[in-house]
Amino acid sequence: MENDKKFMFEAITLASRNACSSTGGPFGAVIVKEGEIVSSAVNSVTTDNDPTAHAEVNAIRAACKKLGTFDLTGCTLYSSCEPCPMCLSAAYWAHISKIFYAADRNQAERAGFSDAFIYDQFALPLGERSIPFEQIFNKEGVEPFDLWIDNESKIKY
Amino acid sequence: MENDKKFMFEAITLASRNACSSTGGPFGAVIVKEGEIVSSAVNSVTTDNDPTAHAEVNAIRAACKKLGTFDLTGCTLYSSCEPCPMCLSAAYWAHISKIFYAADRNQAERAGFSDAFIYDQFALPLGERSIPFEQIFNKEGVEPFDLWIDNESKIKY
Repeated sequence: MENDKKFMFEAITLASRNACSSTGGPFGAVIVKEGEIVSSAVNSVTTDNDPTAHAEVNAIRAACKKLGTFDLTGCTLYSSCEPCPMCLSAAYWAHISKIFYAADRNQAERAGFSDAFIYDQFALPLGERSIPFEQIFNKEGVEPFDLWIDNESKIKY
Repeated sequence: MENDKKFMFEAITLASRNACSSTGGPFGAVIVKEGEIVSSAVNSVTTDNDPTAHAEVNAIRAACKKLGTFDLTGCTLYSSCEPCPMCLSAAYWAHISKIFYAADRNQAERAGFSDAFIYDQFALPLGERSIPFEQIFNKEGVEPFDLWIDNESKIKY
């Protein structure tokens, strides 16, 4: 628990520094494996012109690059704020083993961020979401999956 | 509608090509603004060792880079498959105006992808998810937001 506090303190310190420097949103994240920091990152959406450059996504990308893998099984994510739906899903795809967070989605909302709004969108049927959804070519859309299933040299993830 | 079919056909063609070439998962995406393709991309998770490198995220990042902005208002996303929760959230953060998709999450699941599983995780309380969640330092976690609110030179997104 002392180590968990140390790593979370680092994530919050990164977030606070970013909040003051106008380099991106007030979020920080640290990824740890076997007691050692593998990567740490801040939100860089506005600096990188990349809406996906949240602290957690940046940290996941950096950790994968450093470890040479797309699978972070055994890694723990420390985030200064409850991961938004994008970052939570990224953690699932990366097979992160545990997530610590400090602030929550409602505290993020108070500071002007859409985390809680986007979470709420997930509970709605596709037709009721604020972004209009339309399905076309459903039959044709299955072809890539059939080709994938038949591809014997595919690399699964 | 003819144009929508043309752009979706392009997304599916990209997905099928990727499914055969072992360069990543069987997914393709195209982003269009005012009738012109701004970016197109395939899934490159295994090639880039980046679990966030889904077709839609890659296309969003490429479109933002090309247009020099983190705001894709007015852009339409054509995806060969219903965006996973990560890509759906990325579309929200990027302010994508409309989403077309062909295959759905259940057809993706049949081909071995976790889209439907991750969607189901969102409906669960934090304590019941397959990735353990723990909140620490909640009070300290609010500090970055207070600093952000007070920062008069911040760039909102």
